[in-house]
Amino acid sequence: MPKQIRLNAFNMNCAVHQSPGLWRHPRDRSTEYTSMAWWLHLAKELERGFFDGMFLADVTGIYDVYGGNSRAALRGGIQVPLNDPFMLVPAMAAVTEHLGFGITGNLTCEPPHTFARRFSTLDHLTAGRVGWNIVTGYLNSAARAQGQAKQTAHDTRYDIAAEYMALMYKLWEGSWEDDAVRLDRTAGVYVDPDKVHRVQHEGEWFHLDAIHLSEPSPQRTPVLFQAGTSTKGVAFAGRHAECVFVGANSRHGMVPVTQNIRANAVAAGRRAEDIAIFAMLTVVVDDTDALARDRLEEYRRYASPEGALTLLSGWSGVDFSDCDPEEPLRFVKNDAIQTMLSPVSRSNPEQVWTVGRAATHYALGGASPVLVGSPTTVAEEMIAWVETAGVDGFNLTYTVAPESITGFIDRVVPELQNRGAYKTSYGPGTLREKLFARGPRLSSPHPAAAYRHPV
Amino acid sequence: MPKQIRLNAFNMNCAVHQSPGLWRHPRDRSTEYTSMAWWLHLAKELERGFFDGMFLADVTGIYDVYGGNSRAALRGGIQVPLNDPFMLVPAMAAVTEHLGFGITGNLTCEPPHTFARRFSTLDHLTAGRVGWNIVTGYLNSAARAQGQAKQTAHDTRYDIAAEYMALMYKLWEGSWEDDAVRLDRTAGVYVDPDKVHRVQHEGEWFHLDAIHLSEPSPQRTPVLFQAGTSTKGVAFAGRHAECVFVGANSRHGMVPVTQNIRANAVAAGRRAEDIAIFAMLTVVVDDTDALARDRLEEYRRYASPEGALTLLSGWSGVDFSDCDPEEPLRFVKNDAIQTMLSPVSRSNPEQVWTVGRAATHYALGGASPVLVGSPTTVAEEMIAWVETAGVDGFNLTYTVAPESITGFIDRVVPELQNRGAYKTSYGPGTLREKLFARGPRLSSPHPAAAYRHPV
Repeated sequence: MPKQIRLNAFNMNCAVHQSPGLWRHPRDRSTEYTSMAWWLHLAKELERGFFDGMFLADVTGIYDVYGGNSRAALRGGIQVPLNDPFMLVPAMAAVTEHLGFGITGNLTCEPPHTFARRFSTLDHLTAGRVGWNIVTGYLNSAARAQGQAKQTAHDTRYDIAAEYMALMYKLWEGSWEDDAVRLDRTAGVYVDPDKVHRVQHEGEWFHLDAIHLSEPSPQRTPVLFQAGTSTKGVAFAGRHAECVFVGANSRHGMVPVTQNIRANAVAAGRRAEDIAIFAMLTVVVDDTDALARDRLEEYRRYASPEGALTLLSGWSGVDFSDCDPEEPLRFVKNDAIQTMLSPVSRSNPEQVWTVGRAATHYALGGASPVLVGSPTTVAEEMIAWVETAGVDGFNLTYTVAPESITGFIDRVVPELQNRGAYKTSYGPGTLREKLFARGPRLSSPHPAAAYRHPV
Repeated sequence: MPKQIRLNAFNMNCAVHQSPGLWRHPRDRSTEYTSMAWWLHLAKELERGFFDGMFLADVTGIYDVYGGNSRAALRGGIQVPLNDPFMLVPAMAAVTEHLGFGITGNLTCEPPHTFARRFSTLDHLTAGRVGWNIVTGYLNSAARAQGQAKQTAHDTRYDIAAEYMALMYKLWEGSWEDDAVRLDRTAGVYVDPDKVHRVQHEGEWFHLDAIHLSEPSPQRTPVLFQAGTSTKGVAFAGRHAECVFVGANSRHGMVPVTQNIRANAVAAGRRAEDIAIFAMLTVVVDDTDALARDRLEEYRRYASPEGALTLLSGWSGVDFSDCDPEEPLRFVKNDAIQTMLSPVSRSNPEQVWTVGRAATHYALGGASPVLVGSPTTVAEEMIAWVETAGVDGFNLTYTVAPESITGFIDRVVPELQNRGAYKTSYGPGTLREKLFARGPRLSSPHPAAAYRHPV
C-alpha cells in the first residue's frame, strides 16, 4: 500500500494569501473572508474531502518593504486587511467533527500565561483537534505594532522561542497532573490541590509565578508546527516540531531539505519519522491536462506580479520596487525567503531567475510548485512527491476560492483514494492520534514529555 | 407600555462562577463547561429566551487570598479550572443569529494591537454582536502570572486604562475610513491606501506605530461594558461605558448607585440614558412561591460557605479563613468588593453582617439579590426593579446549570412578555442597535466618535 498522503488546506484570515490578484477573478469569493458563512462552508468542504486540517497562516504587521510603504500591500489587498486566525477555529470546530486546525501564533506578541490558556481552551472545545504553528515574526512592521523599533535579531528570536517553549511545557504538561480533577461530589472535592503545581519561571526573557488555569486538555500541548529552515530554525524544528511546513520549487530540490529536517530530529534524540513534513503545493486541475492548462492561463490573467513582489519584499527585506525586471534575483538568506526561494538556488545553482520571472511565478501559488493537469496527472505527481521527496503531505494553497478547493476535493481526492494513497475515512482520536497514531499526548523523547509529572 | 427589561446570562468559562458548591447538585452539569456541546446548547437556549446577550466574566489568576494559598479555590473549583472566554464566542455565534456576547478582557495583559484585531475579527464574524467588558484585574495572582510582583495600584490601573482606550479608539475608529475598502476588480484596487491611516502612539504606557490590520467591522468599537464602582471607576464608566454591570443587595440600595453612574455620564457630556445598567440577579423560580422556596432550600444544601469566603477573600484582599463566623464583616473599599458588599453597608448602615452570614448568603448567587417565587412573583419584582431602581436589566447568574436558565426561560420569560416588559422578538441590527437603536457605531459625544475620520 502506498504511503498515505497528509493534506492541510493552507489559509489565512484574509482574501489574498499566496495568489495576489486572483480576488479579481469573476468567480472568486475570497473577499467574503470576514463572514462566518465563508469559514463554516470551507470547513465542511474540507471535512468532506478528508483533509487532516486547515493550516492558518498569520502575520501581525503589514508588507511595507516594497516601495518603503504600505501602499502596494493595501492596493492589492496583500495579506491585508487581515483578521485574527484563532477566532475562526471554534466556529469551524462547531460544524465539523474531525478536521484539525493548525494556527499560527507569534510568541513574541503573546503573553505566555494567557496564550497557554487560549490553546488549552481550544484543545478542550475541539476535543483535541488543534495545533500551533510556532513563529517569531519577520516583519519590522509587526515589531513596530508591538512598540519596538524593529524585529529582534533572528538568532535571538530563537533563543526567546526556546525559553518560551520551556515555559509552555511547564504550563501545559507540568502544572496539572492527569488525575488532578477529581469531581468528587460527595467529598466536595473538585480538584485535588496536591496535584496542581505552581510554575515559577525566572528566565532571561520571561517571568511567571502561577498555576496554569486550564485543566488538562486532550492533547495538553497542541500539535506543534514549525516552518523555519535556517540552521537555528531547523535545529528548533528537530527538537520541538511534530509537523514541519516547507516551501519547495521542485521535487528533486526537496530531498536535501527533508533529509536535513529529519537529521535534526535524530540529532535531538528523536526518530526521523517523528516529524511529518508538509510541502506547500498549488494544484490547478481540470478534466484533462489541456483543460487544466487553459484554466491555469485563465487564472494567470488575474495574477498580480506587483502583488508577488510586495510579498517577496516583505519576506526578504529587499525592496524590489525599483528593480529592473531583467535583474537577477538576489538570494537573501533568512527563514522566510529561504523557505520560498532557496530550493531553486540550491538545486539549480546555474539557474538564474530574474525579478520579472519571479514576480510572474510567485503571483500564483506563491513559493509553491504548481501542479497542473488532469486528476490522474495531479494524483500521480503528488504520490511521486511523497514516495521520493521525503515529504508526508502538502499544505494546499487556494487560487480562485472556493472553486480551487472544491475542484480538488471533487476531482483529485477520488483519484488519490483509488490509488490507496489517501484515507477514505478519518482515523480515531485527536489530531495528534490521527497524524501519528501514538496516543493523544507527546511522549519521550520529545522535550515536552519531560515536564509531565509521572503517573 | 412598561420599560423593556434587558437580560444577559452571566457566565464564565468554568463550572463554579457565583454559586460555589452547586456543582455537587445531582442535576448540575456545569462541569461540562470544557465541551463544545455545553456552550452550543446554552447559546441556543438563551436565544430561545430572547436574551440580549451572554456576559462572560473572566479572571487571569486564582483566588489565593483565603488561607494564603490556592488550596480552597482548587478544592472547591472556585473559578478554577478556568478557560479563555473569547474562544467560546465564535462557536456560539455559529449556531445563533441574534444573541450578543459581552466578553471580559483584561487590558493589562492584552497587547493593544493584537487585542484590537481580535475584537474586530469577532465583530466581523458575529455581524456586530460583541461587547467588551473592560477590566484591569484585581488579583495579585493574575499579576504574578504576568511576571509582576503584584497588581499595579488601583488608580494607576485606571490611568493605564484611559490611555489604552484612546489607543483602541485610534485603531478601531481612526485607522480605516469607512470607504477605504474599494474592492474595485477592474482597477485592481482592494483598498484605497489614502484612506488607511497609520496610528503613531507614544504614550506613557503604550507605544505603537502601525495601521489596524482589520477592515472596519459592523460596530468598529465593540459595545463597551464596565463594572467598576469606585470614584475613578464610575468616572471611567461615565466617559466610556455603554453598559454598566452592578452588584446589588436591595432594590432600594440600588437607587443611589444608578443615579451616580448616570450623573457621571452627564458630567462627561453624555446623556443619562446613554448607559444601560445591568444589575446582577439570581432567580429561583418554581410553579408556586412555596415550591420555589423549597427549591431554594434544596439548592442551598449544596452551597459552599467556604467557597463563598474564598471568593470574598479574593475580591476584598482580606483573608477570611481564620475569622470567627460571628465576626462582623469588614467593609473593604475597592472595585471588586464594593460591587459586592457596599449596597448593604450604604443603604443599611445599621445592619451588621457577620462573616458566617455572608458566607451563607454569598454561597448562592454571589453578591446578587436572590428572587425566589412563582413566575408571577419573580416577574413582578423584576419589573419593579427596572421601574424604580434605575436599572435597565439584569445579568442573570446560574445556580444549578442548566436547569436554572431553562427554568427561567420556560417560566419567567412568558410572564414578562405577558406584561409587555420583555421583547417577543429580537430587534434588527448589531448588538449596539438592539440595545440603543441609534446606529451600529458610537456617536458623539462618546469619545470614540472623535477618533473617526469625517466622511
